[in-house]
Amino acid sequence: MNSFGMKLRFSTFGESHGKAIGCLLDGVPAGLEIDEEYIQSELDRRKPGKSEFETARKEADKVEILSGVFEGVSTGTPIAMLIYNTNQKSKDYTNIKDIFRPGHADFTYFNKYGIRDYRGGGRSSARETAARVSAGAIAKLMLTKMGISVLSGISEVAGIKSEVFDYDKAKSSIIYALDSAKEEEQKEAILKAKNNHDSVGGVSRVLIQGVPIGLGQPLYYKLDGVLADAMMGLNAVKAVEIGDGVLSSRVLGSQNNDEIRSNGFETNHSGGILGGISNGDDIVLNVYFKPTPSIFKEQHTVTTTNEEVDFSLKGRHDPCVAVRGTVVCESMAALVIADMLLLNMGSNMEGVRKYYS
Amino acid sequence: MNSFGMKLRFSTFGESHGKAIGCLLDGVPAGLEIDEEYIQSELDRRKPGKSEFETARKEADKVEILSGVFEGVSTGTPIAMLIYNTNQKSKDYTNIKDIFRPGHADFTYFNKYGIRDYRGGGRSSARETAARVSAGAIAKLMLTKMGISVLSGISEVAGIKSEVFDYDKAKSSIIYALDSAKEEEQKEAILKAKNNHDSVGGVSRVLIQGVPIGLGQPLYYKLDGVLADAMMGLNAVKAVEIGDGVLSSRVLGSQNNDEIRSNGFETNHSGGILGGISNGDDIVLNVYFKPTPSIFKEQHTVTTTNEEVDFSLKGRHDPCVAVRGTVVCESMAALVIADMLLLNMGSNMEGVRKYYS
Amino acid sequence: MNSFGMKLRFSTFGESHGKAIGCLLDGVPAGLEIDEEYIQSELDRRKPGKSEFETARKEADKVEILSGVFEGVSTGTPIAMLIYNTNQKSKDYTNIKDIFRPGHADFTYFNKYGIRDYRGGGRSSARETAARVSAGAIAKLMLTKMGISVLSGISEVAGIKSEVFDYDKAKSSIIYALDSAKEEEQKEAILKAKNNHDSVGGVSRVLIQGVPIGLGQPLYYKLDGVLADAMMGLNAVKAVEIGDGVLSSRVLGSQNNDEIRSNGFETNHSGGILGGISNGDDIVLNVYFKPTPSIFKEQHTVTTTNEEVDFSLKGRHDPCVAVRGTVVCESMAALVIADMLLLNMGSNMEGVRKYYS
Amino acid sequence: MNSFGMKLRFSTFGESHGKAIGCLLDGVPAGLEIDEEYIQSELDRRKPGKSEFETARKEADKVEILSGVFEGVSTGTPIAMLIYNTNQKSKDYTNIKDIFRPGHADFTYFNKYGIRDYRGGGRSSARETAARVSAGAIAKLMLTKMGISVLSGISEVAGIKSEVFDYDKAKSSIIYALDSAKEEEQKEAILKAKNNHDSVGGVSRVLIQGVPIGLGQPLYYKLDGVLADAMMGLNAVKAVEIGDGVLSSRVLGSQNNDEIRSNGFETNHSGGILGGISNGDDIVLNVYFKPTPSIFKEQHTVTTTNEEVDFSLKGRHDPCVAVRGTVVCESMAALVIADMLLLNMGSNMEGVRKYYS
Repeated sequence: MNSFGMKLRFSTFGESHGKAIGCLLDGVPAGLEIDEEYIQSELDRRKPGKSEFETARKEADKVEILSGVFEGVSTGTPIAMLIYNTNQKSKDYTNIKDIFRPGHADFTYFNKYGIRDYRGGGRSSARETAARVSAGAIAKLMLTKMGISVLSGISEVAGIKSEVFDYDKAKSSIIYALDSAKEEEQKEAILKAKNNHDSVGGVSRVLIQGVPIGLGQPLYYKLDGVLADAMMGLNAVKAVEIGDGVLSSRVLGSQNNDEIRSNGFETNHSGGILGGISNGDDIVLNVYFKPTPSIFKEQHTVTTTNEEVDFSLKGRHDPCVAVRGTVVCESMAALVIADMLLLNMGSNMEGVRKYYS
Repeated sequence: MNSFGMKLRFSTFGESHGKAIGCLLDGVPAGLEIDEEYIQSELDRRKPGKSEFETARKEADKVEILSGVFEGVSTGTPIAMLIYNTNQKSKDYTNIKDIFRPGHADFTYFNKYGIRDYRGGGRSSARETAARVSAGAIAKLMLTKMGISVLSGISEVAGIKSEVFDYDKAKSSIIYALDSAKEEEQKEAILKAKNNHDSVGGVSRVLIQGVPIGLGQPLYYKLDGVLADAMMGLNAVKAVEIGDGVLSSRVLGSQNNDEIRSNGFETNHSGGILGGISNGDDIVLNVYFKPTPSIFKEQHTVTTTNEEVDFSLKGRHDPCVAVRGTVVCESMAALVIADMLLLNMGSNMEGVRKYYS
Repeated sequence: MNSFGMKLRFSTFGESHGKAIGCLLDGVPAGLEIDEEYIQSELDRRKPGKSEFETARKEADKVEILSGVFEGVSTGTPIAMLIYNTNQKSKDYTNIKDIFRPGHADFTYFNKYGIRDYRGGGRSSARETAARVSAGAIAKLMLTKMGISVLSGISEVAGIKSEVFDYDKAKSSIIYALDSAKEEEQKEAILKAKNNHDSVGGVSRVLIQGVPIGLGQPLYYKLDGVLADAMMGLNAVKAVEIGDGVLSSRVLGSQNNDEIRSNGFETNHSGGILGGISNGDDIVLNVYFKPTPSIFKEQHTVTTTNEEVDFSLKGRHDPCVAVRGTVVCESMAALVIADMLLLNMGSNMEGVRKYYS
Repeated sequence: MNSFGMKLRFSTFGESHGKAIGCLLDGVPAGLEIDEEYIQSELDRRKPGKSEFETARKEADKVEILSGVFEGVSTGTPIAMLIYNTNQKSKDYTNIKDIFRPGHADFTYFNKYGIRDYRGGGRSSARETAARVSAGAIAKLMLTKMGISVLSGISEVAGIKSEVFDYDKAKSSIIYALDSAKEEEQKEAILKAKNNHDSVGGVSRVLIQGVPIGLGQPLYYKLDGVLADAMMGLNAVKAVEIGDGVLSSRVLGSQNNDEIRSNGFETNHSGGILGGISNGDDIVLNVYFKPTPSIFKEQHTVTTTNEEVDFSLKGRHDPCVAVRGTVVCESMAALVIADMLLLNMGSNMEGVRKYYS
């Protein structure tokens, strides 16, 4: 239950304040050059402590590959990657040892398992997503070889919406903003909330280009369904849209259908997916993150023995979890597409014969 | 790839104009009374042709149980259910035999598989959802025994939003409207589109009550992720929200966190799920359906040999697929919750010992 | 839990004396010609009542395809197949309603599920294997297209061993005997046991030819492991050998290793599998069936309320379950090979690129 | 494909001469005391270099737990365990870099993946089984709490068969011999082969006691089938028997059936499994290992470019892989039983109600 994917399957382990976090990535085709610097560069994009818009926890997030790579190339065996935790401050958490933080998984983990590693959120911490990014980086290496790119950026912070989606711009923005005209306003909203001991939400927009027609396994491992699972399963995500998403439900069929001409679709309201299968057009997702639940304002809650208390959280937290979250959205998208690329092989006899010819 | 669920696993088969559709439901605990009338009543809620707001195709949708039930009780073996197709009019589809309908899966299925059962959309038709409803009915029978209820209704049609969510009212509404004050306006929007040879979208809202704390398997079979997959995988769905969803991304952390008191959560912005695990509160989902892509207006498209044509669709179609879709959302929700209920068993040693004592 | 396979996944349903048995076969590549006569001919090889060496229950075992095939060709969607039961004599079983037959699953099913369809063994009956054979027939159609053949025969009955393995001969033998010189003796052993109200065991030998090098997914979906699961999971099977099997454990390494020359392996002690992966040589299995537990001799047993009784079984049973079992071994082998053939696609980047080029 | 199990799922990684090997064990119920000394003691039983009957490679096999355990107790999150490789002598393998060793996976890995980590067999090395033993040790800790024990020993070496099965005796035997009267002869056979630069096979016998009735998920995740997969998937295993195994196929039904009395089964020919489900009696397996293929005698083989060569292997190898293999058989058996114990929960409504009451 800590695994994702069918043919490209990754499994993660580790707690926020444990020794290490890491992952197993199983099913990487042999013969892929594994560029460790690239993997590290992806982790660097996600790592905390890079600016005032992020948590102050500083982690090198140095990844070590333990298996599955020989002389720089994947061997087809599972690739294990390890990231040691170095900057835990577990004593920050002793005051919440017996307290359920509002908006957190504390309450549900404790009730499900009867035990909880309270230090930094334990397993439920977004720190686990570093493992996803390391796996996603390998998926991206594979996709690049197939001419597929996965991009993303922040399209909205605290309700302040981007009007243009410039993915190149997002790469150089400290908050991965897609619209430079809105970036300052979005930054201010984050800092204002932070200064008020509060937090804000935001939206990540993901763009996947170059996907061949035919990815997605109907009817129950559909491309849109699996992408929705991948995104909704991320910490703090509360809504996912494919293509026009919510808007689609408010227009007419004649407005929403993407008509087809001999050179392709005339529009892309569908977000590149029809019937759960990629149609060759750009795949577009919007992923909505709630504000970080960890805020420093005093809040009402109860203890593990159900006594009411008011408390103020300590620790180090992102004022807007969507910012670093967008990197994770990209990783998950890459993992899904790579998995579907492999799964799709064998859909028809012509392909099977070609493969074995 | 035509299966869903881990411990309660259902698999469906069948095409819109084939002999029959049906499903296998595997993992139903032995000893559950299988009320066939109830299953049929659920299918009756979804079946087409009940009103002018639905497709004119009339199907009895009479379900037959082939296995897994002995003397009215489940035996623990797979329950196979069969629904024969009776009202196909396949010749309506001969004019689209070589055409890709805009907004449909025609294009993607043909390209993925190299062959397509064009009659009524074949496997990609929403007709398949009758199989889901039959499986969902059994899941509901099981949930009822555990004190869990799954309800739903239409909260929005063509952008006309409900202001109250009255699930009892929805049961008696022909369009499953949650807000009787909005129902007429919503009906008019449907009929107007229908008369213009067009279609409208809508939103289903699902409410799940009585769920025990602890359901959901983090970090990659989370309750919210799996619900998102289940809903996004339905025909025409383009967005899914849990709890406050999109709205959550636009408020402050202090507004969005659900504070806790000794008698429970003070609010339910989270929609009953924290860290991918049920928190015991009501689970709330919003599922956004695009307008039915099958419209009778002339549209631009291409043939299977990529020649441009303008064509007008024939056949019988729902002017608002969300209406009958809400019944399917309920079924999927019930299947997910029942699966999670079974999966959760064994989360801790105390439970294992209790079970085997 | 009633499913087998990863990419070619089949699920079965049905009880011995229920309305029908059947299966879903999911993952068949589109574009395969589905020869229904061939499927029926495979079922005819397995069907009961063909001779005095088999149970007297006569079943037409007429298979009906419900989905997944359009104009004689697979569409890539799940293929559902149905076989109605026609010759049940359930009243034969009323005397064992409350009794656990020695050697049967009665005892374990009742204790696991708390309920048992006692008629003809219910779900645990070997009647379910007809569904396996129908699925296996489609797998064979696919394998034939890829130049792979799956053959089998009876190599041993009641300890009487074949000395030659003539798979052609086996096809025309009423007991699928591989060695015509031993066939009469083997038949006599069966009839002698039958006349004594007893039963005998036997061994099926399976030969798979033309398998490409590379099938099998180490280290936990190995070709040998999955074949062992497939065979050991058959009714009455108690041992499985790959290649030289038990004998391998009694010789020296220098005797058991298959040395390699430029034109291939010099011997085939390995049975065509090294490290869980096919090596291109013939795959050889031996599958050991215990004697049918259903015998008419008086036996000691207990009732469902644990009262001791002596009873004599009624009903109709095979005196040597291995005979018809060999057909099922072939089907399972075909399903495993076809699954592995599809799973193997994507093992290396060269193959991925070739597929998508 | 490097994972095993459904609810208790373990995944391994690592190559013989890579940095480390290890595993993830997912699904361990929370609240289990994790005795690290016990885990290490199990690894010590398997570790190489303890005597002249084993390979001379000396590995400390010191296991480190990275996650999933908090204050000595499992938390329900995945348990990652790491074992660093310390005693590789990779240069021993440079002479086989371009050679396929007879009886090894060299040939099949190279052909499947197009690349091969030749050092010490890479991923196909039995070194990976250390990871299995660490996972198995945790499974055993869990089983012990449930009153279930898993024992094993060597019942046969080079055809020299044990006549008594004394599992206590086996614990103190350097070759895990079950029959002290045969131990010296068995040891001599090993040393004789070793001195002749050859190797011998052997048989591990596994005994599982205290298993509750009802474990095993028919019809395709049966207890016997999954045990067969688990054992056949081990390096060098070529045959698996449950209960009387091969012998069952040579006796009469009346001899093989285990009659039942009010205090239980009168015999245990079935090996504790009926219809793929545990019957409460002792579960007995025999696992047949071929002789180690790595022998120092000169052998015929080919290079990766298919040139014929005669070569003599270097390196360090077990003269009888069954000896240390028996420890791994125990681990795999423990993992299967623990998985089945968890999977079985939810088989009937009575159990579901009890769990949630």
